Amino acid sequence: MATVNKHYYKLAAGYLFPEIAQRTEHFLKQNPGLKIMRLGIGDTTEPLPPSVIEGLHQGVDKLSDVSTYTGYGAYEGEVPIREAIIRQYGRRGVSVDVSEIFVSDGAKPDSGNIQSIFGTDNRIAVQDPVYPVYIDTNVIAGRTGPFNSEKGYYEGITYMVCNESNGFFPSVPEKKVDLIYLCSPNNPTGCVATKDQLSTFVDYANQHRSIILFDAAYSAFIQQDDLPRSIYEVEGAKSCAIEINSFSKSAGFTGVRLGWSVVPEDLIAEDTKKGEINALWRRRQCTFFNGPSNVVQAGGIAALSDRGMLECQQMIDYYMENARLIKKGLQSIDITVYGGDNAPYIWMKTPKSMRSWDFFDKLLHEAKVVGTPGSGFGPSGEGFFRLSAFGHRENIIQAIQSIKENLKL
Amino acid sequence: MATVNKHYYKLAAGYLFPEIAQRTEHFLKQNPGLKIMRLGIGDTTEPLPPSVIEGLHQGVDKLSDVSTYTGYGAYEGEVPIREAIIRQYGRRGVSVDVSEIFVSDGAKPDSGNIQSIFGTDNRIAVQDPVYPVYIDTNVIAGRTGPFNSEKGYYEGITYMVCNESNGFFPSVPEKKVDLIYLCSPNNPTGCVATKDQLSTFVDYANQHRSIILFDAAYSAFIQQDDLPRSIYEVEGAKSCAIEINSFSKSAGFTGVRLGWSVVPEDLIAEDTKKGEINALWRRRQCTFFNGPSNVVQAGGIAALSDRGMLECQQMIDYYMENARLIKKGLQSIDITVYGGDNAPYIWMKTPKSMRSWDFFDKLLHEAKVVGTPGSGFGPSGEGFFRLSAFGHRENIIQAIQSIKENLKL
Repeated sequence: MATVNKHYYKLAAGYLFPEIAQRTEHFLKQNPGLKIMRLGIGDTTEPLPPSVIEGLHQGVDKLSDVSTYTGYGAYEGEVPIREAIIRQYGRRGVSVDVSEIFVSDGAKPDSGNIQSIFGTDNRIAVQDPVYPVYIDTNVIAGRTGPFNSEKGYYEGITYMVCNESNGFFPSVPEKKVDLIYLCSPNNPTGCVATKDQLSTFVDYANQHRSIILFDAAYSAFIQQDDLPRSIYEVEGAKSCAIEINSFSKSAGFTGVRLGWSVVPEDLIAEDTKKGEINALWRRRQCTFFNGPSNVVQAGGIAALSDRGMLECQQMIDYYMENARLIKKGLQSIDITVYGGDNAPYIWMKTPKSMRSWDFFDKLLHEAKVVGTPGSGFGPSGEGFFRLSAFGHRENIIQAIQSIKENLKL
Repeated sequence: MATVNKHYYKLAAGYLFPEIAQRTEHFLKQNPGLKIMRLGIGDTTEPLPPSVIEGLHQGVDKLSDVSTYTGYGAYEGEVPIREAIIRQYGRRGVSVDVSEIFVSDGAKPDSGNIQSIFGTDNRIAVQDPVYPVYIDTNVIAGRTGPFNSEKGYYEGITYMVCNESNGFFPSVPEKKVDLIYLCSPNNPTGCVATKDQLSTFVDYANQHRSIILFDAAYSAFIQQDDLPRSIYEVEGAKSCAIEINSFSKSAGFTGVRLGWSVVPEDLIAEDTKKGEINALWRRRQCTFFNGPSNVVQAGGIAALSDRGMLECQQMIDYYMENARLIKKGLQSIDITVYGGDNAPYIWMKTPKSMRSWDFFDKLLHEAKVVGTPGSGFGPSGEGFFRLSAFGHRENIIQAIQSIKENLKL
C-alpha cells in the first residue's frame, strides 16, 4: 500500500501567493468588471530589453540548423554563461571558479532544493518574516515539528525576528543552528544587510560549522555602493555560505526561468572535506535536473553582456522609480514605510496596527489594490504589509492615487 | 554543525552518463585527434522542425512587447499547452482533465521528484535493467538500504528482472511493493509492454493499493498501433498510475527542456481520498518549481499543432530508420539484438558474453564507437549493451560500418 509523505499535512496553509490569487478572484467574482490594481506578487511587467530578445532569438535559431543544433547541455549550465556570471562577481571583487557555479531554472527551485543535500537532523534558522519557500521545503523534508498555530511557528525551526527595533536584521541565534537562511535584499522587508551585519553571521557559521544559505535574488536592486551584493564580499564566507541568485527580477525572467547557485569548493560541513558539498550539489543536479534550457541560457548570456547590462539597468531603474513613488505616496498619508530604497519591496506598517490579512481585505475593498499580507511571511510580519514595485508606471500611480483617495484611515 | 544527507554516500557510482563521458574523454586524451562515433547517450541530433522554431520565436517576441509580455505563469503550465497535451491523449481514446496535467522542465525532473510526495516507508520496485534515475532518487531519499556490490543491488528495492526469458518485461512482484516504476518503451531494452502486460500491473496495483509511476518518454516511437502509448489505455489505470512524458525525444527538446506528468484525480493511496495525491503534487510543484519557461511552452504548443505533429513525425521516422540500420548491421555480423522496432534503443547481447564495461572499452578502442554498458542500467543488464538511434544518418552508417570492419569478434 502506497503511503504519502505525511509531512505535507503539517503545512499550515496553501502557499501564500495562490491564497492571494484565490481571495482576489473571489472579490472579482462578487464585483464583476471592477478594475483592481496589483501590487501583490513580485512579478515583472516590463518587456525584455532588445539585447535579451536578440539573444533568445539567436538561441532559437541555433536549434534550427543541423550544424548548430545542440541537445542535452551541461547539468551545471554551459561554460559561457557561467563565465559571464563570474565576471559579474569580479566587478565586486569576488572571485568564483567556474566549477562553483550551477545554473538552473531559477532561484526558487534552488532555494527549495538546496536543503535536500543536507541531513534531516539539521536545525534550520530563518529570518522572520521571510520568503515562505525556505520554511515550506524544510517542513516537507521533515526537518520540523508540527505547526504551532498559537505562535504561528513550526516547532523545531529557529525564527530570527526582524522588526523595527533591530532594523529588520537579526542578531545571530543564541541557540546553536546548522543551516541559516538569509535573504538580502530581504523579501519581504526590503532591508539590505550591511557587510558588518553579514560578518556576524559568517563568523558565527565558521565558528559553529553552520552553513548559510544566502538568497541574493534582489541584489541588482541595491543602489548604495557600500552594501554587499554578494555574501562573498564578506571575508570568510566561502567556507560557510552557498549563494543563490536569479535572472527573474534583474532581467525580467520571471516567466523565462533562469537562476544560479554558487557552492564554493572551500565550503565544508561536519565531517566533510573541501569540495565535498560542491560535489553533492553537482550529484543532486545531475540526478534530478537536466540543465537549464539552452534557449533561455542564450538570453541569459545576452543579459550579462555590456549592452544587456545597461538595458537591464534601465529596467531596474524603472522599477526603483516605482518604489520611490509608492514610498513617497504612502509617507504622504502618514503611513510608516520601510524598504524600497535598495529593494523593489516596500514594507509598510498597517494603519492602527491592523492585522495583515484584515488590511489585505480593506485595501482590496476600499482602494481596489492587491498587496501581500506581511503575516504570510512569518508571525513577525503580522501588522505589516508588502507592496511590490513591479508594475507599469501608470498602474503604480493609479494605485497610489486610489490608496490616497479611498483608503479610510 | 551542518551535516550532509548521508544517503548520497550509498550511491554506488557516479551517474552513468558522466561516467561514460569521463572514460571517453580519457580515451580521446590518449588518442588526440581521433574521431569517435557516439551512439551512447540518447541525445537528439536533428534540428527542430520549422513550426517549432516559429513557435519559439513567437514565444520570444511576445516578451518584447509591453502588451504581450508575461511574467510568472501557472505552476502547472499554461492552459493551452495542457489542452494540447489532452488532445494527444484523446487521439488514443484516453480522457484526461486539464487539472490532471502538470507541465514541467522535463521527464527527468518529474521522474526524480515524484517520489518525494510519498512516504519514505514505501517499498519501491523497478525493472532491471532500467533508467538509473528512479533508483538513484530513491536512494537519496533514504528509501533503500546500502548497495550490495556482490549482487549489484541496493538492499530494500525490489528488482523486477527483465531478460531474454521473459521478453524483457517482468511479472508482477511476488513480494508486496508500494511504488512501481515502469518504463515503456523501455530505456534501455527498447521493449514495449503490451496492453495485457500492463493490465497485470494495473490489476496488481489496484488490488494492493500500490501506485505505478509510468514513464512514457519514448511513446512517440511506438510503430505498432496495438501497443499502448499511455498506461491509461488500460482499464483501471486512472486509480493507480501516474504517467510521465516528455518533449525531449519526440520534438527534439533534450536541451530545450519540457515535459509533463499526469496525476489523475481518481488516483488514491493508503488512507487518501480522490484528488488528494493530485493536490499533493500540485503543492510540491507550487513550492519547489515556478512553472516551465514561457518561451519553451510556446515551442511545445507548436510541436503539438497539426503541422508540428507532422514535422515531428518525420524526425521520429528519421531516428527509427537509424534504429533499423543499426539493428540490421549488427544482425549481419550475427550479434543478437532486441528493441529498435518501437523504440530508439537497440539492446544488443555482448559477443561471447563479455561484461558490459569490457565491451564498452572494446567497442571504443576497436571501432571508435561509444555506446552504453547495459550493466549501468542494473545487474540484469550485465552482458548487454545499449546503442542509441539518435544521431546523424552518416554517423550511424559510419559507426555500423566501423563495427562491422573493426570489431574483433
